[in-house]
Amino acid sequence: MQTPQSPEHPAVPDATAPDRDWAAASADPRYRAAVIDLLGALAYGELAAFERLAEDAKLAPGLADKAALARMAAAEFQHFEQVSEHLASIAEEPVTAMEPFVGPLDEFHRLTAPSDWLEGLVKAYVGDAIAADFYREIASRLDADTRGLVLRVLDDTGHASFAVEKVRAAIEADPRVGGRLALWARRLMGEALSQAQRVVADRDALSTMLVGGVADGFDLAEIGRMFSRITEAHTKRMAALGLSA
Amino acid sequence: MQTPQSPEHPAVPDATAPDRDWAAASADPRYRAAVIDLLGALAYGELAAFERLAEDAKLAPGLADKAALARMAAAEFQHFEQVSEHLASIAEEPVTAMEPFVGPLDEFHRLTAPSDWLEGLVKAYVGDAIAADFYREIASRLDADTRGLVLRVLDDTGHASFAVEKVRAAIEADPRVGGRLALWARRLMGEALSQAQRVVADRDALSTMLVGGVADGFDLAEIGRMFSRITEAHTKRMAALGLSA
Repeated sequence: MQTPQSPEHPAVPDATAPDRDWAAASADPRYRAAVIDLLGALAYGELAAFERLAEDAKLAPGLADKAALARMAAAEFQHFEQVSEHLASIAEEPVTAMEPFVGPLDEFHRLTAPSDWLEGLVKAYVGDAIAADFYREIASRLDADTRGLVLRVLDDTGHASFAVEKVRAAIEADPRVGGRLALWARRLMGEALSQAQRVVADRDALSTMLVGGVADGFDLAEIGRMFSRITEAHTKRMAALGLSA
Repeated sequence: MQTPQSPEHPAVPDATAPDRDWAAASADPRYRAAVIDLLGALAYGELAAFERLAEDAKLAPGLADKAALARMAAAEFQHFEQVSEHLASIAEEPVTAMEPFVGPLDEFHRLTAPSDWLEGLVKAYVGDAIAADFYREIASRLDADTRGLVLRVLDDTGHASFAVEKVRAAIEADPRVGGRLALWARRLMGEALSQAQRVVADRDALSTMLVGGVADGFDLAEIGRMFSRITEAHTKRMAALGLSA
């Protein structure tokens, strides 16, 4: 349920939910279902990111770049392990929690297989940033235990600075690269939104929590506004990278 | 240099070299060159194993198996990091040390791309075991510091028991699978030996150390005997797996 921001919790300024812990919050079966969905999506997102980064490591122009991408993939796997262990600790089977998100995430990766090293880097950067924005949007509605886990696994794995540095250097060396990568980033965002909308339509409990717990069903307009905020943040990041989004 | 086994070092029963540390041993430039080669091959072997396991994770029949293979891949990457850090600590550029082994290892993996999940598991098991046999053969000729590192990164990452269990179950369910996988294991061993011979022919310092430091050049017959021992161990492992090698 959406509650007014509580001045008693200044340490978590964006907290719109009272600072309940998991034991208290999960007594509500709809909340519990929404968090299982959220963590299932996060876990499979990390596992899929591991696979994608390991695959993109093959496109690396040299061994040092290959090792850098493999390092990020291994970090994603550690995050996957943390979320899996957390699911198991609250008596949920990680595989069952992940199942509903395999289709949309695999489809996203299938439709956005990078054709070269730079496209792979832009995808790692954009994909990570969009996921982080989404989970930060939702973190304020979570109980303290779940929020702690989510913020921990969103910790930067070094993707951002590595990708930004390499992409900027490539655009500097050949400005035409910028136009191609700007189109690519636009396609990534489009496919991400289209799969996210598919998930929203399919997963009632999750969608309800996304918009702050409207009792029955959910407010599509509010979800639209959340997607707008994420798109705006993406546009700003692309501009910082030297790409017009 | 090959020395008789020293009864003063019962803790390392297979040590044929005096228990020197790296500082003392690396004063000999041929020894230093051989160890750089060995660690370069080990580092790239781990990085390539990471990529191969991450790739084979796609063949997994379900999410739990996929996660298990990804876990092994992440463990291989941690080993790669340890060897890389060790190379850096002895003032060697890991990328330079790995370069000579990229060709043979990539070629091995290109020629032995598994066509299904079970072939991938047999390859992970066989490949790991052969590499471990090889490094254990050579460990006794290493200084104490390098030996410690090598034995540490050969620590079982759980490949063996996972692969053995799955392959045995598959053969039990359909005994014809055993014939196909036995052929596959034979092919893996053949390609591994052929790439190993290529490395032996190319890398003088390494080959000299392999046979115990004959001063000039190396004894091909002794290398042949080492390969025989590794092949015999492989045959025994295949029999234990229910495959005739």
